[in-house]
Amino acid sequence: MTKQVGCPTEITLDVIAGRWKVMVIFWLLQDNRRFNQLQRDLSGITHRTLAKQLKEMEADGLVEREDFGEIPPRVEYRLTPLGRSLEPVLAAMHDWAIQHGAKIRSSSKG
Amino acid sequence: MTKQVGCPTEITLDVIAGRWKVMVIFWLLQDNRRFNQLQRDLSGITHRTLAKQLKEMEADGLVEREDFGEIPPRVEYRLTPLGRSLEPVLAAMHDWAIQHGAKIRSSSKG
Repeated sequence: MTKQVGCPTEITLDVIAGRWKVMVIFWLLQDNRRFNQLQRDLSGITHRTLAKQLKEMEADGLVEREDFGEIPPRVEYRLTPLGRSLEPVLAAMHDWAIQHGAKIRSSSKG
Repeated sequence: MTKQVGCPTEITLDVIAGRWKVMVIFWLLQDNRRFNQLQRDLSGITHRTLAKQLKEMEADGLVEREDFGEIPPRVEYRLTPLGRSLEPVLAAMHDWAIQHGAKIRSSSKG
């Protein structure tokens, strides 16, 4: 099956697909984080789902995993420069929500 | 189960969740479209999935459906002002893909 790529936006969608990845980027933009911290930040995410998101984001070059080689193990996740370059995308989403989010909440979620 | 909303960005994610909605907005930013046109634009989408996306986007106030009352039926979809207000979000995604998309393609998709 051939896939027609309508616009480059689809590439961005591929890398931030689903709410979790965007929220991982959001939290990692604040600071590096350990797995358990991220899981608390993203309340509702399972261990398995978070591990999968992080693996995919590592494969896409958005996230780096640093193992400090300590006992007990200490591993941190941080954004690569490529991951950090998504900040304007998140900022645009944030601005839209601030300006228009209330309309959405009242129209369909209220 | 309580849900902790970490940042307003989640509201934006709620309304553009999944690739299809963003691509519907992308195509409707070009021009109003009939259902069949949209289905062709979004090659790969099923009738059922597209219908569901459009219904949700109508409920969120992003999209309007106009029935021209003609026989054979002519129905067009268009963005509301609220839907159109997402243009900067799509523009940020588009710009990111133009600047960085090649890195993604070579790192994980190549």
